[in-house]
Amino acid sequence: MKIIRTVKAMQLEADGLRMAGKHIGFVPTMGALHAGHLSLIHCAKEEADVVVVSIFVNPTQFGPAEDLDAYPRDFKRDEALVAGAGADFIFYPAVEEMYPEPYHTIVSVDTLTEKLCGASRPGHFAGVTTVVTKLFNAVKPHVAVFGQKDYQQVAVIRRMVVDLNMDVEVVSAPIVREADGLAMSSRNAYLSPGEREDALALSSALEEAERMILSGVRDTGRLWEAIESRVMKKASARIDYIAMVDPDTLEAVESVGQRILIALAVFVGKTRLIDNRLIES
Amino acid sequence: MKIIRTVKAMQLEADGLRMAGKHIGFVPTMGALHAGHLSLIHCAKEEADVVVVSIFVNPTQFGPAEDLDAYPRDFKRDEALVAGAGADFIFYPAVEEMYPEPYHTIVSVDTLTEKLCGASRPGHFAGVTTVVTKLFNAVKPHVAVFGQKDYQQVAVIRRMVVDLNMDVEVVSAPIVREADGLAMSSRNAYLSPGEREDALALSSALEEAERMILSGVRDTGRLWEAIESRVMKKASARIDYIAMVDPDTLEAVESVGQRILIALAVFVGKTRLIDNRLIES
Repeated sequence: MKIIRTVKAMQLEADGLRMAGKHIGFVPTMGALHAGHLSLIHCAKEEADVVVVSIFVNPTQFGPAEDLDAYPRDFKRDEALVAGAGADFIFYPAVEEMYPEPYHTIVSVDTLTEKLCGASRPGHFAGVTTVVTKLFNAVKPHVAVFGQKDYQQVAVIRRMVVDLNMDVEVVSAPIVREADGLAMSSRNAYLSPGEREDALALSSALEEAERMILSGVRDTGRLWEAIESRVMKKASARIDYIAMVDPDTLEAVESVGQRILIALAVFVGKTRLIDNRLIES
Repeated sequence: MKIIRTVKAMQLEADGLRMAGKHIGFVPTMGALHAGHLSLIHCAKEEADVVVVSIFVNPTQFGPAEDLDAYPRDFKRDEALVAGAGADFIFYPAVEEMYPEPYHTIVSVDTLTEKLCGASRPGHFAGVTTVVTKLFNAVKPHVAVFGQKDYQQVAVIRRMVVDLNMDVEVVSAPIVREADGLAMSSRNAYLSPGEREDALALSSALEEAERMILSGVRDTGRLWEAIESRVMKKASARIDYIAMVDPDTLEAVESVGQRILIALAVFVGKTRLIDNRLIES
C-alpha cells in the first residue's frame, strides 16, 4: 500500500491507473477509522480494481464551536486498518496542501442542504461538497463510496455529482452498528460509559418507530412523540432534531407513505450523534 | 469534425481520447464566433492533439436585464468557422441537457469576482465558474484556452482551477482586434454604424493611457481623467467602470507600478463592451 501526500502526485498516480485501464474506487474519510469505514473499503473493492482511501480532517466542514481540534487523529492506526482492509493507496494531504493561501472557491448545493444537519450546522455541507470536489479532482475515481449513516451527505453529494456533470458513480453502503445497535461513529470515542449507554436511545427509538409503522401507524406526529419520549428518558441526551422526511427530497412529510426516512441528531453529553432508518412499508 | 450534444457522449469520447494517449484542448464559447475565437482554436491546436470547441449560450451568467434572448445564435455559421479553424469536435448541448430540473449546485469564487465586471453584473461570475466546471467535467480537457479580452474571467477561472485541484492547464490568448483597434466581440454585432464609430473610444483611450504611462505618468487619477474624457466625447457612450488594478489581485492601485491592468466597460448605446490593456513599464 502506498501513501500519497500531494494532489499532484495523486493525480499522476490516477492518470497512470486510468491509462492502464484500471477502475479507481474511492473512499473519502476523516480517519479515526472503524468497522463502518472498513465496510466502505470492502464495498469499493467489489466495485473497482484499485481502492484509494483519503484521510483528511477537513476544517471547512466544522463550525466554529465544533470539535475540529478534538477530532481523533491516529494515522498509524488508520494506516494499519486501511492496509488490512486491502486498499491500495492512502491519500493523506496536509491542510496546507488542500487549502493553500489564498483560497477563494466554494462548491455549494442549495435546498437539500437547508434541512436536518444543514439547519443545525450552517456551512457544514458547503465544506463537504467543496472538499469532495477537491478530492474527486485529485483521486479521479470511477466510483466513490459513502456511508448511509450520513444519509443527507450522500443525497447532497449525489445532487452535486449530477448537477456538475461529475463522471463519478456514487455508491452508498449500509450503516454498520455495534452489537447493541449503536451506529458506528468516530465520535463514539468521546462518550463516557454512562453516555455510551444513553447513546443507545438513537437506534432503539428508530427501531421502535419502525415497529409502529409496520403495525400500521401513519401519523408522523405520533412517531415523533414516541421517539422524543424514548430519547428524553436518557439523562445525558438532548435532541437536536427528529426528522421524518421524503427519502429523495428530504422534505418533511405528515403521513407515512411507502418510503420514509427517519433521521435523528442527538447530543449525548457534548457529543452530537446521528442515526437514521429508511423504512419501506 | 464531429458534433456532440450530450454530456455522456462527450465524456465517453473524452475517455476514449485519453485512453489513446491524446491530449485534449478545449475552447469554451457562446457561439457567434469571430476571429478572436478562431485564434483561441489555433492556440488550442498548438497545445493539444485534438480540439473540442463548446458552443453554449449559458443562461446562468446573464442577469435578468441582460441580453440572453437577443444574444446572436447561428449554429450553421459557427460550425463552418470551427471546422475551418481545424477543430475536431463541437460540444453543443441544449440548455435542458446542461441544466435539467431540479438543479441546485453552484461553484463560486469570492473576492476576485466582487470587482470590475463582478460589481456591475452580480451573479455573472458564479454562472461562469459553474458552467466552466460542468464543461470541464464533460470535455475532460488537458488544456483550456480563454481570451484575454475577458481578463477578469480568466483570473477567476485560474483561481477556481487551482482552488478545486482541477487538473486542467489554463492558457490565455491575446485580444484580437479589428483593423481600427476595436476588440473583437460577438456583441459588436449589436452596434449601429454611429455606435461602431463611438466604440473606438475604448481601445483609443487605452492606447492613450499606455502612451501616458510610457511617457512617465504614474498617477492613476490623471489616467482616469484622460480615459474618461476621451470616452465621454462620444455621444452614445456611457462609462460602466474604468479600473486601474494590480493584474494579479485586481485590487485598485493609486500609482502605476511595473505592471498595471487598465480595464474598461462602456455602454455604447445599449451594448455593453469591455476592453483592457496590461501595461508593463
